[in-house]
Amino acid sequence: MVYLDDLDREILKLLKEDARITISEIGERLGKPESTIHFRIKKLIERGIIERYTIVLGESARPKEIAFVILELEKPVIEDFLSKYLEYVSRNLAMLPHILLVGKTKDERIIALIGAEDREELTKFIEENIKSIPSVKEVLVYHVEDFKKGEEIKGLLIGI
Amino acid sequence: MVYLDDLDREILKLLKEDARITISEIGERLGKPESTIHFRIKKLIERGIIERYTIVLGESARPKEIAFVILELEKPVIEDFLSKYLEYVSRNLAMLPHILLVGKTKDERIIALIGAEDREELTKFIEENIKSIPSVKEVLVYHVEDFKKGEEIKGLLIGI
Repeated sequence: MVYLDDLDREILKLLKEDARITISEIGERLGKPESTIHFRIKKLIERGIIERYTIVLGESARPKEIAFVILELEKPVIEDFLSKYLEYVSRNLAMLPHILLVGKTKDERIIALIGAEDREELTKFIEENIKSIPSVKEVLVYHVEDFKKGEEIKGLLIGI
Repeated sequence: MVYLDDLDREILKLLKEDARITISEIGERLGKPESTIHFRIKKLIERGIIERYTIVLGESARPKEIAFVILELEKPVIEDFLSKYLEYVSRNLAMLPHILLVGKTKDERIIALIGAEDREELTKFIEENIKSIPSVKEVLVYHVEDFKKGEEIKGLLIGI
């Protein structure tokens, strides 16, 4: 973990909450001169701690149904094929707009987060785009009902 | 899904990439007058499509190791206890800084995304904070090796 002092952390917290806050507002809230805040933000950007500024999409633009899917493929007969095939399948999944997140796991599975308008659309998507992948061994589907933390990923990862 | 026309989508894409872009830059890039862009952004905010502006934390602030964990609890003897217990456990997990995301699934499991500095810290965290939860039946751990999409959640969900 990089070194951040209390002032850095306070600035980052305010920017995470609302990145449109002005430097003078941050200074006022934290009781520091504007020049200090300006310098710190500049440094946080230079150090690669702030990567960029973005928007969070709201409820009305977010998928209503969310599920994590864990996909296991049959080990094919030809050696070394599995890792190439996993790479190929996960890249293809990444191109689909319903897929918000996709990654390969260390134990040769694929994990994906899928968003849809309703349960029916989600089930149809999984049937047509995941269960139909050649050589699928197992597809575990975990429908997320209720987030206690991190729900805003829906508004961050969704494609436009 | 809400109705968005092509111009709305183009504006949202530019803001997602870099929310510090000015209205006049957006106008120039999309060949539209500033007043149009200003009006559209105002409407996107009013309609709850843009919820807020935030920062994405960069590589140097992100956890190096990431795992999805799926937790199943034993069904306790007393009826109706499980749902309250799931609620309690998931709320407690949400308070821990290593937990980037936590939710309850429709089949009474808990799913969490955990971030740590290295494999050792991650394993220790799971032993001490997840496997030690009373009445744990099964803990599935999926270490994500390689993201094809959505990797930036690390820089969006991480606490400061």
